[in-house]
Amino acid sequence: MFQHDIPAPFLLGTLDMQRHHAEAIFERAERIERQFAGLRTSELFQELAGKTVVNLFYENSTRTRTSFEIAAKRLGAMVINMDVATSSVGKGETLLDTAATLNAMQPDFLVIRHPFAGAPKLLARKVQASVINGGDGTHEHPTQALLDAYTMRKHLGKDLSNRVIVIAGDIRHSRVARSNIWLLTRLGARVRVVAPPTLLPGEMGQFGVDLFYDMRKAVEGADVVMMLRLQRERMQGVFLPSQSEYFRYFGLSDTVLARAKPHALVMHPGPMNRGVEIETSVADLEGRSVIEEQVHMGVITRMAIFSVLAEQRRLVAENRSEELMA
Amino acid sequence: MFQHDIPAPFLLGTLDMQRHHAEAIFERAERIERQFAGLRTSELFQELAGKTVVNLFYENSTRTRTSFEIAAKRLGAMVINMDVATSSVGKGETLLDTAATLNAMQPDFLVIRHPFAGAPKLLARKVQASVINGGDGTHEHPTQALLDAYTMRKHLGKDLSNRVIVIAGDIRHSRVARSNIWLLTRLGARVRVVAPPTLLPGEMGQFGVDLFYDMRKAVEGADVVMMLRLQRERMQGVFLPSQSEYFRYFGLSDTVLARAKPHALVMHPGPMNRGVEIETSVADLEGRSVIEEQVHMGVITRMAIFSVLAEQRRLVAENRSEELMA
Amino acid sequence: MFQHDIPAPFLLGTLDMQRHHAEAIFERAERIERQFAGLRTSELFQELAGKTVVNLFYENSTRTRTSFEIAAKRLGAMVINMDVATSSVGKGETLLDTAATLNAMQPDFLVIRHPFAGAPKLLARKVQASVINGGDGTHEHPTQALLDAYTMRKHLGKDLSNRVIVIAGDIRHSRVARSNIWLLTRLGARVRVVAPPTLLPGEMGQFGVDLFYDMRKAVEGADVVMMLRLQRERMQGVFLPSQSEYFRYFGLSDTVLARAKPHALVMHPGPMNRGVEIETSVADLEGRSVIEEQVHMGVITRMAIFSVLAEQRRLVAENRSEELMA
Repeated sequence: MFQHDIPAPFLLGTLDMQRHHAEAIFERAERIERQFAGLRTSELFQELAGKTVVNLFYENSTRTRTSFEIAAKRLGAMVINMDVATSSVGKGETLLDTAATLNAMQPDFLVIRHPFAGAPKLLARKVQASVINGGDGTHEHPTQALLDAYTMRKHLGKDLSNRVIVIAGDIRHSRVARSNIWLLTRLGARVRVVAPPTLLPGEMGQFGVDLFYDMRKAVEGADVVMMLRLQRERMQGVFLPSQSEYFRYFGLSDTVLARAKPHALVMHPGPMNRGVEIETSVADLEGRSVIEEQVHMGVITRMAIFSVLAEQRRLVAENRSEELMA
Repeated sequence: MFQHDIPAPFLLGTLDMQRHHAEAIFERAERIERQFAGLRTSELFQELAGKTVVNLFYENSTRTRTSFEIAAKRLGAMVINMDVATSSVGKGETLLDTAATLNAMQPDFLVIRHPFAGAPKLLARKVQASVINGGDGTHEHPTQALLDAYTMRKHLGKDLSNRVIVIAGDIRHSRVARSNIWLLTRLGARVRVVAPPTLLPGEMGQFGVDLFYDMRKAVEGADVVMMLRLQRERMQGVFLPSQSEYFRYFGLSDTVLARAKPHALVMHPGPMNRGVEIETSVADLEGRSVIEEQVHMGVITRMAIFSVLAEQRRLVAENRSEELMA
Repeated sequence: MFQHDIPAPFLLGTLDMQRHHAEAIFERAERIERQFAGLRTSELFQELAGKTVVNLFYENSTRTRTSFEIAAKRLGAMVINMDVATSSVGKGETLLDTAATLNAMQPDFLVIRHPFAGAPKLLARKVQASVINGGDGTHEHPTQALLDAYTMRKHLGKDLSNRVIVIAGDIRHSRVARSNIWLLTRLGARVRVVAPPTLLPGEMGQFGVDLFYDMRKAVEGADVVMMLRLQRERMQGVFLPSQSEYFRYFGLSDTVLARAKPHALVMHPGPMNRGVEIETSVADLEGRSVIEEQVHMGVITRMAIFSVLAEQRRLVAENRSEELMA
């Protein structure tokens, strides 16, 4: 998770993530789950005791912010939420000056969500904290991809090779789709993306995925069907004819799901638009829908990410960086 | 505090609360006060160590949220504040989907304030956390009623039987009034409610309280006079002729208070509209006004509620549920 | 830090601060830095364990609030952020009723930022908590002044006597300027203030500073040049002709800085308006600009302030107040 121009271990995306890095996070998550098992949630982990985590969110996302906050606090960290909408950024301060200010307060981890692709990387070059990308524009959302893959592994086994995974919806604008595509193909899965042509540019083919414009065909024989949230602003006008037509051709109904493998998983990063991209009966389908489990695995995976990065920071501090980079 | 369709111990309201449940909370509060006595506030309680409390507030209330937050943190819990105004709820997510999401993050306690009556109960059926109603619409605000009764007990003795308690103001729209009426009558007190007819529907009589439309008569011989906050939106138009007329007939002045018992208590849930429902001289009356004490007792009572629920959760976890339900 | 009508040790301003009080804070900050040295930031300080700090901010300032929050949490305190913009204050509650409510929740420290000069002092008279002024109107911002002086001491030595310190910008409206002027003159420094006449009233001369209306002359031979942030609302209309003209005459460029001593420090309380009051090359000048260091020292100095006040509170509690006042 290093680049020579970035001072600290980080998690910026899945595009450049090596497979063994992802595996290290999954294994750490398994260890954390074992530690929880048999114990009450009251069990205190102390791995991040005395560490400071700053949640720097330039876009509102109570859901994601809360997941990071719980993960960090369950590891004993102190968490500072920075409400950037009302902060000095509003006073015209540049991201780099904000970075310098934050750096001077010496946090250990900096979780950033930002509307512009690349903002987390820009930040990572300027701070000693380990930067975690909590979503940047339409670019990456790596922790979502890691928790999705971790959830799949629990149901399909550790080896996702040749598993058929369908990602359906607004591929064009989705950072969840991008991070999932890059991670899942790295893990050997066969990824299909499906959307109306306006939401699925042909260039996506270069990422080693199969493009579909017909939902029924895409779902045929799938192990996983991952639905993306349709942003309201796409529902009218340029990209889509109408909401009901979208559901008819690209929504996930029982009929469509019937074309997947008998035990295919239904996934969604949330929050769902029931009746828009996914039918309620499918969203709540016992034994198939793992949507709530994704949220639970989100906390576990983020704990694992903090834990692995904290370990790397300790190694770096102990001047064993050569060993680590090997 | 159980219902067969709700998975965890909860505090949803006072309507169905048994007297011995209320007494258990009061006794726990007394124990907590004894623990504080002689100690610095620095004394750390660890009863909720490792537990997660989520404050899910769909209405702004810094005062109530802060009281719950301090209570939980003083017991060693970690507290997550969810700013729902800016959350995915704003993205059209249903309360039940939010509940499922929260549940998946495995909090131990969920304090909810919501504009719709019944929202906390709906939530309680879907989550493993213990749900505490922090105020739902015009329905219930049970922690306020418990802290009010606890404050009265400190001054009037543990037995409130036949104590005359006046609740004055916008009874129609007040969840504080409802929760107090139900709890206080259960504790044997004689409750009088007083308001203009537009703010006091005759059906309130079915709750075992005496209805008054004349403040002077209502206060006659009272042990407690509890004033409710008059919401600004009621001050004009349909419900009330004018603010000054309201004060003249239904506000609490020295003259009106003189009709109560010599040592009658003056209470108010806050924040006060001085000069609207209560005169400043009365609000600050030494030895009579216990308005600030209510705030202090609010933290103590909420600590007691968390503590009792945590104990019940431990008992349930130990499979001694039969014993508990008896 | 006492006045006979204020119940607890406090930090309200630098105007009445004695030199040995400031020195006590600087020495505590040095001790804290020594404790950090050689240790990871993970080292836990427990001086404020079990203490409650309330951040009561009536003006948005993520930067200052975060600095106080990190400082308090690094000492083991629990921190409650009160978002006053959405609180009961919006419901018309007076500051004194808010104070009474807060007091009843028994915090140990109350950090207040308020648009009205004197609000912290008003609050301090009503609460048992130690009040820390986090900025009140155009009056005082004492923690900023203390961190600025502490930063200067690290570079110029502990004795600031006869050091020439220039404060440039909107002196008229700046609480940072006032607190710095009062503290620095107390410490023996020679303070020069410089601004256009509309932003520098002649009465400032009574504070024992030298007034300049020409930036170049003011900077001549300076040890420190401290630039103030120019508020946008001043940039047009009554006070200033135009932004570019302001920079030409009162901004800090390389050329202007060249008139100061060879190793003069460049300071700014942040957030900066690059190109308005300060040139980017100067703001980032290696070895001269200590702007980021000020932020770091802000956390250290605020830790020291909490630590000293906590100690004074312990002494007061132990009835050794006579000793303390001596």
